[in-house]
Amino acid sequence: MKELVFVGLGLNDEFGLTLKGLEEIKTADVVFMETYTSRMPDFNLQHFEELCGKKIQFITRQVLEEENGKCLLAAAEFGKVVFLVPGDPFIATTHVTLRIDAEKIGVRTRVVHGISIMSAIVSLSGLHNYKFGKTVTVPFPETSAETPYNVIAQNKKLGLHTLCLLDLREPENRYLTINQAFKTLQIIEEQKQEKIVTPDTVVVGIARAGSDYPTLKAGFINDLTVFDFGPPPYSLIFPGDLHFMEVDALVSFADAPVEFKRLFK
Amino acid sequence: MKELVFVGLGLNDEFGLTLKGLEEIKTADVVFMETYTSRMPDFNLQHFEELCGKKIQFITRQVLEEENGKCLLAAAEFGKVVFLVPGDPFIATTHVTLRIDAEKIGVRTRVVHGISIMSAIVSLSGLHNYKFGKTVTVPFPETSAETPYNVIAQNKKLGLHTLCLLDLREPENRYLTINQAFKTLQIIEEQKQEKIVTPDTVVVGIARAGSDYPTLKAGFINDLTVFDFGPPPYSLIFPGDLHFMEVDALVSFADAPVEFKRLFK
Repeated sequence: MKELVFVGLGLNDEFGLTLKGLEEIKTADVVFMETYTSRMPDFNLQHFEELCGKKIQFITRQVLEEENGKCLLAAAEFGKVVFLVPGDPFIATTHVTLRIDAEKIGVRTRVVHGISIMSAIVSLSGLHNYKFGKTVTVPFPETSAETPYNVIAQNKKLGLHTLCLLDLREPENRYLTINQAFKTLQIIEEQKQEKIVTPDTVVVGIARAGSDYPTLKAGFINDLTVFDFGPPPYSLIFPGDLHFMEVDALVSFADAPVEFKRLFK
Repeated sequence: MKELVFVGLGLNDEFGLTLKGLEEIKTADVVFMETYTSRMPDFNLQHFEELCGKKIQFITRQVLEEENGKCLLAAAEFGKVVFLVPGDPFIATTHVTLRIDAEKIGVRTRVVHGISIMSAIVSLSGLHNYKFGKTVTVPFPETSAETPYNVIAQNKKLGLHTLCLLDLREPENRYLTINQAFKTLQIIEEQKQEKIVTPDTVVVGIARAGSDYPTLKAGFINDLTVFDFGPPPYSLIFPGDLHFMEVDALVSFADAPVEFKRLFK
């Protein structure tokens, strides 16, 4: 059967896969995987291959983007191809094109969802899902851009929280840290002076969302710059208006200073 | 060990559970489950209990909200309790309080994420994740409120997409349909006349996200009102500004009229 099934791997390790996803792999003719849109720090390939009873073929960004996923589409001409993607398959938009191309040449496509960093972070923080505005990625300082700052500012004006994904460079195994993200944003603060990212701005830092040992810390930027979050990957939330129940959650789950209860009531 | 582990069940059926979630259930002393924040249409309890080797105890909204989850907290005094929740455990905010209460009395809590309707819908549509603004729930017509209309209007002004969850009443097995949602929103349109929800507004309707057979249909409201989406549950997206790649995705995955390519380029 000509078929290309996009399967989300979820976060952190091989156990974030769903039962449905595992079944798809077991019945596939060929299994490809990419790890360039996101890293899975505790993923054990050997254990994963034993679990699935399948050999996994890795695909680079180059093969997918420059060659338009030719080898996946070629394999799908002859049978069922499973393409494993960290998180949820299309939260990173880079695979949408591949799916469109497959459908155009008559290859049937399906999606088996995986846990996305987006919902994991919202869920861990205890902040209210419907109070999040637009999401943004904070880039490495050498590609300094105003967008993340402007998105946080716009959301704040509307009372909304901003989820910031922090950039990563997979081939170099390089992660933007929470402190580096503050620095990137503070450069724009110095230019725009809108008091969006100052030492006493309230933030929530998250490390290793989706793992068994995530670290959360809510506080003022001043506090978080001296906090040790441990190993990557990292994310940040810039809260907008806080409901008292959200403050309670930040105190309970993210070790926010108790003075938060007085400040936001 | 005094422990309360919140495990997300994902969407639709028992196969949306992660391998990590299954392991947590197998090693639990007691397993509770709720199905009132969301329904899992194809969930087979008997098969699920065989899979886990555990008896599942169901919890009603009343027990959780009026009695503050007393029975779960009481059980956690004596061992490891797993609480199964559809989707991701804290995307519905109703369980955040239970988690706070548990931590306060010294019960350790952990979160095992599940697939959330939020990321599944974004992923299926092929629309760009970072272009979604605030999310909103459209209620049944008898609780008509301006909020959903205002959220769509605000997002549109910013060029952003709006994800609308459609209300459900679990005890009555009642789902708001896509047509009913239009009617609820059109009542506000008549009052406010901002041309946010008109017969030629572009929308994307989604039925059964997360199942093996989701239905997507993009088009004008006029087209969607005569479209048969099949069984529930339903969701809606009101797109903001569309990138040509997003239009391509809507034509490929959501059967959007080809004239979309001319309208949005």
